[in-house]
Amino acid sequence: MTVERIKTYVDGFDEVIEGGIPKGQIVLVCGSAGTMKTILTFSMLYNNAKHNGLKGLFITLEEGQENVKKAMEDLGMRDIDELDIYILDIARIRIEHKEEELSKNWLDILMRYIQQRVKVNKFDIIVIDSLAALYALSELKLPRRNMFHFFNVLRQLGVTSFLINEIPFGSAKLVPYDEDFLADGIVYLKHHEVGETDVQLRIRCVKMRRTKHFGGYFVLLRTENKFMVTRVISE
Amino acid sequence: MTVERIKTYVDGFDEVIEGGIPKGQIVLVCGSAGTMKTILTFSMLYNNAKHNGLKGLFITLEEGQENVKKAMEDLGMRDIDELDIYILDIARIRIEHKEEELSKNWLDILMRYIQQRVKVNKFDIIVIDSLAALYALSELKLPRRNMFHFFNVLRQLGVTSFLINEIPFGSAKLVPYDEDFLADGIVYLKHHEVGETDVQLRIRCVKMRRTKHFGGYFVLLRTENKFMVTRVISE
Amino acid sequence: MTVERIKTYVDGFDEVIEGGIPKGQIVLVCGSAGTMKTILTFSMLYNNAKHNGLKGLFITLEEGQENVKKAMEDLGMRDIDELDIYILDIARIRIEHKEEELSKNWLDILMRYIQQRVKVNKFDIIVIDSLAALYALSELKLPRRNMFHFFNVLRQLGVTSFLINEIPFGSAKLVPYDEDFLADGIVYLKHHEVGETDVQLRIRCVKMRRTKHFGGYFVLLRTENKFMVTRVISE
Amino acid sequence: MTVERIKTYVDGFDEVIEGGIPKGQIVLVCGSAGTMKTILTFSMLYNNAKHNGLKGLFITLEEGQENVKKAMEDLGMRDIDELDIYILDIARIRIEHKEEELSKNWLDILMRYIQQRVKVNKFDIIVIDSLAALYALSELKLPRRNMFHFFNVLRQLGVTSFLINEIPFGSAKLVPYDEDFLADGIVYLKHHEVGETDVQLRIRCVKMRRTKHFGGYFVLLRTENKFMVTRVISE
Amino acid sequence: MTVERIKTYVDGFDEVIEGGIPKGQIVLVCGSAGTMKTILTFSMLYNNAKHNGLKGLFITLEEGQENVKKAMEDLGMRDIDELDIYILDIARIRIEHKEEELSKNWLDILMRYIQQRVKVNKFDIIVIDSLAALYALSELKLPRRNMFHFFNVLRQLGVTSFLINEIPFGSAKLVPYDEDFLADGIVYLKHHEVGETDVQLRIRCVKMRRTKHFGGYFVLLRTENKFMVTRVISE
Amino acid sequence: MTVERIKTYVDGFDEVIEGGIPKGQIVLVCGSAGTMKTILTFSMLYNNAKHNGLKGLFITLEEGQENVKKAMEDLGMRDIDELDIYILDIARIRIEHKEEELSKNWLDILMRYIQQRVKVNKFDIIVIDSLAALYALSELKLPRRNMFHFFNVLRQLGVTSFLINEIPFGSAKLVPYDEDFLADGIVYLKHHEVGETDVQLRIRCVKMRRTKHFGGYFVLLRTENKFMVTRVISE
Repeated sequence: MTVERIKTYVDGFDEVIEGGIPKGQIVLVCGSAGTMKTILTFSMLYNNAKHNGLKGLFITLEEGQENVKKAMEDLGMRDIDELDIYILDIARIRIEHKEEELSKNWLDILMRYIQQRVKVNKFDIIVIDSLAALYALSELKLPRRNMFHFFNVLRQLGVTSFLINEIPFGSAKLVPYDEDFLADGIVYLKHHEVGETDVQLRIRCVKMRRTKHFGGYFVLLRTENKFMVTRVISE
Repeated sequence: MTVERIKTYVDGFDEVIEGGIPKGQIVLVCGSAGTMKTILTFSMLYNNAKHNGLKGLFITLEEGQENVKKAMEDLGMRDIDELDIYILDIARIRIEHKEEELSKNWLDILMRYIQQRVKVNKFDIIVIDSLAALYALSELKLPRRNMFHFFNVLRQLGVTSFLINEIPFGSAKLVPYDEDFLADGIVYLKHHEVGETDVQLRIRCVKMRRTKHFGGYFVLLRTENKFMVTRVISE
Repeated sequence: MTVERIKTYVDGFDEVIEGGIPKGQIVLVCGSAGTMKTILTFSMLYNNAKHNGLKGLFITLEEGQENVKKAMEDLGMRDIDELDIYILDIARIRIEHKEEELSKNWLDILMRYIQQRVKVNKFDIIVIDSLAALYALSELKLPRRNMFHFFNVLRQLGVTSFLINEIPFGSAKLVPYDEDFLADGIVYLKHHEVGETDVQLRIRCVKMRRTKHFGGYFVLLRTENKFMVTRVISE
Repeated sequence: MTVERIKTYVDGFDEVIEGGIPKGQIVLVCGSAGTMKTILTFSMLYNNAKHNGLKGLFITLEEGQENVKKAMEDLGMRDIDELDIYILDIARIRIEHKEEELSKNWLDILMRYIQQRVKVNKFDIIVIDSLAALYALSELKLPRRNMFHFFNVLRQLGVTSFLINEIPFGSAKLVPYDEDFLADGIVYLKHHEVGETDVQLRIRCVKMRRTKHFGGYFVLLRTENKFMVTRVISE
Repeated sequence: MTVERIKTYVDGFDEVIEGGIPKGQIVLVCGSAGTMKTILTFSMLYNNAKHNGLKGLFITLEEGQENVKKAMEDLGMRDIDELDIYILDIARIRIEHKEEELSKNWLDILMRYIQQRVKVNKFDIIVIDSLAALYALSELKLPRRNMFHFFNVLRQLGVTSFLINEIPFGSAKLVPYDEDFLADGIVYLKHHEVGETDVQLRIRCVKMRRTKHFGGYFVLLRTENKFMVTRVISE
Repeated sequence: MTVERIKTYVDGFDEVIEGGIPKGQIVLVCGSAGTMKTILTFSMLYNNAKHNGLKGLFITLEEGQENVKKAMEDLGMRDIDELDIYILDIARIRIEHKEEELSKNWLDILMRYIQQRVKVNKFDIIVIDSLAALYALSELKLPRRNMFHFFNVLRQLGVTSFLINEIPFGSAKLVPYDEDFLADGIVYLKHHEVGETDVQLRIRCVKMRRTKHFGGYFVLLRTENKFMVTRVISE
């Protein structure tokens, strides 16, 4: 049984995950501040829209749409508006309706919104940036149960989902709750100190269901408007 | 007195645990996300059904039955439906009866369900995937006592049980409570960073009652539709 | 003043603790899961019954008597029933009287039981397997005071006591409370990772009152139906 | 699309962040006690006022204005009063109105004050020294939400903001809450022990949105009235 | 001004603390289980009684007087009863009056007892074995204040005091509260792992007021009925 | 602008802090038990009184005045009474008025006392021994705010202040709250284990406002009645 896959368009990385992420899976993209989580994930959405005609929904909870778009344009993604990409700017909604922010159950709102939009607009890929921001807006009483049902909604819609997750400095945990067990895939980004003074950005596929993947680290680079990985040169 | 044993069908591993896991024991299969806990355990169930005619019950609490089966078919286990394997899809029950989820005592329900099914259907092997998901559904007031009685139910039924247990990243503990002392066996799976960039999957038998076993680490591989272990090559 | 001693019957180990454990002392046997705490301690009871005619009481709180005996028979101790060894199966009592379990103060029950049995049956050696299981059954309000009085009861009876204590993985503590200061002796068992892949079982006498003992580590082996220690070969 | 940038005037550092910090961004300056956070940040404000005519607002919550100015004059910044630099001395306000300190919501006061002053006085750069002092004055009920809205106010004003953040000794975290994810840039200062006895001040740009930056460490020096960075000489 | 000193009678150790512990000081003797805290401290009391005619009071809170004396006799201190040594057996009092134990404020009782006995019997040296046992018997509401006043009582009596303090395995702290700052001296005993298998008992004088002392580690040995220290041989 | 400085009279140390501590600053002297915090700080007070005619106030919260003076006399400071040094013995006040101790707000009392005495007696240098003892006497509801105002009182008086701060063994923090950010200077004393057996006393100036200082470690020695630092000899 062949698994249909969504390419990451990271040169050298698709090759080690059997060509891409299985369609319909939920993938965590985890890393500390400054590890390019948003840019990397957006570029997957962008490239799939551009090269495969896939429809993408990018949900930003804290950074405004304008900032996201400008950052992406800097990196060469200048035709976002011409592609099937929709950015849901929850940051702006929160700012404009600050007084209502507290009374809302944002996890439920987001779940229903996604269900409706995916059914109507047929999105293929959804990105949520970020889980921590979502948790800050939603008091989860039973996190693992709540997330089980949230993940289930995503799975039943058939969309491929990327959930961006922030790792605080010095934390040994990848995720706040047990999302790593609920998710189908985990992409881990980290700043690795090389020697005493250099810091490399590295990427690792920790988990990917239905995929025979290499589990070690690559150096992640962005050059000529695309991401690529290279093997770490031994010291 | 000879101990009857259940083979793991992991090449090279049965040899170091005197041929297999003693029949009727409760074995924890512990590992962090992406360490193939589910696949390894399912494959034991599958191979015993296929080659020894043993009846297997796989209880999944979070991943849907369809996903589990597809993942196993990918790995070459394509005749699951023709074998004496029953998958109890609690994930689906939870989704379909979401509103009742909170009011149930899932540990008790599961205990009674297993008792009844094993008596009626004569299952030989039971897998619970996973303990953490079960705990998320059941508020344990006195975990060690509750688990003592749960383990006792399993032992009295005479079935061989595999309980999958998730280790959060960065945790030094194998289990949340003291299940490691209550269980008869512990199989530990871990991602081991080799040098700076490579990550190997390793397996270790930490404990196995009534078994003289090697306690060190092996590399765990899946090739040609079967699992095998090899000794770690010294660096 | 000569101290009367109870041999451990671990080859090479008695020699480094002046011939054995001082009669009447309370010894903690500490180790993580799979370190043979139960087997090692039972074998001391067994060998003293067999070779010295000492009467032994083994109190098991979680593992059933049948399982304990089978495990010991596997290891060559096949004449348990012919010796002065009594196994108190609290596990069975708990299962048969599950509904009364909560209402009992097990620490008090056990104290009174031991007092009565030792007076009537003149036991020489008592094993409690395990402290953690006992604590799970008894809400200790002032642990150090409670254990002081419990230890005092054991001391006044003149029996030599072995209290098995479980160390959770990754814990730096030997005991949950301050039992290490209340006890007369501490035998510590640990899995020691040798190089990257091998795991050795090691034993160390951390403390033994009234005994000039070697305080370092030995490798603990079981061969030809007996335990023995060897010095660790330097790497 | 070209990004307008604010120079740091740290010799050798602007070169590795594409010439400076993108205008309008919010940058955290993090370090433990004694890492020159205040001096470094003030000097950026000062040099931009002096060389580029940018208007700067320095908000000090604990150190009095006189002390701040004297310290800067020591370092050669003797014409502060002649430049477009305004120091808001909240320390003095707190001392003079000690009895009212508790009843105020300082985060809100500061937000409104900044909004008004920036609109009226057209400040280009704002420094808050320090976040921890601000938190000590403001009970944040939902820190991430509160800071999201505070950051949003700063962003909407278009000013470039530097928020000084103190890292307690021995802490692995850069920030108390999740400000590292909300901020656009992070400059990290640390005392690095070289060998056994020497301690170097090092600087690292952990994150800077819309900027291709070097992420490793430099040595930070102050000589001849200016800051400069040099590459660490390998040991 | 010459300081009168109490010899420790540990060969080689008195020499590095200017001949002994200043008379009237309060010294903490800290170490984990099995580090000979009780024996070492008792032997100081014993030798000062025997060779200098100093009167000693040994207060034992958990180990019975008989056991203490037997252990000391094993080590060659056979004439305890002929010397001016009084052992206050609080362990026995607690056992005989178990029902009253809870209602007593043991810290106050001990303070008053010591005050009265020292005035009447003119004790020169007092040992309390141990602080942790005392704390287990006394709910300290404001530990640092309570201990300040307790220490003050000891100081005003002019006696030299040794307070035995237990360090749990794996703890980085020497004392539970801040007794290390209140005390005049600290003697630290530790098990030091040498290579992979050997464990040495080491002693260090961490602090001694009014004394110019060596602050490093010695190996502590007991041979021919006396304690001695030797310098650690470099590995 | 020249900064007036208070010499530390530690040979070799004044040279690396531009000649001394800026007059009027608040300096934390931090170290674990036995690192000579009190002696070092008192000697600064003493030498400034003796050689510069500066008036010093030493506030001791736990160690009695007599003990402090005797310790200092041992070290050669025999003319304390002839100099302008006043020792405020709060320890004695606490002992004599034990029953009132609890009802007092010691932080406020001390603040008012210092204000009055400095105005009347014109003290130049104040030492508080120690912060931890002060905190034990004062329930700080909002530590950072309370200390901000306390520090402000000291600053407005123009006195140079030394606050002695105790670091518990094994703690990675220098201070309990954020005093390191509020203070102008931090002198850090530590026991450094050299090799396996030796322990050196080292000193480091972590922070000193308005001072270009060396930030690394020195060995701190006391010889011939004075303190001196030497560079650490490389191992």
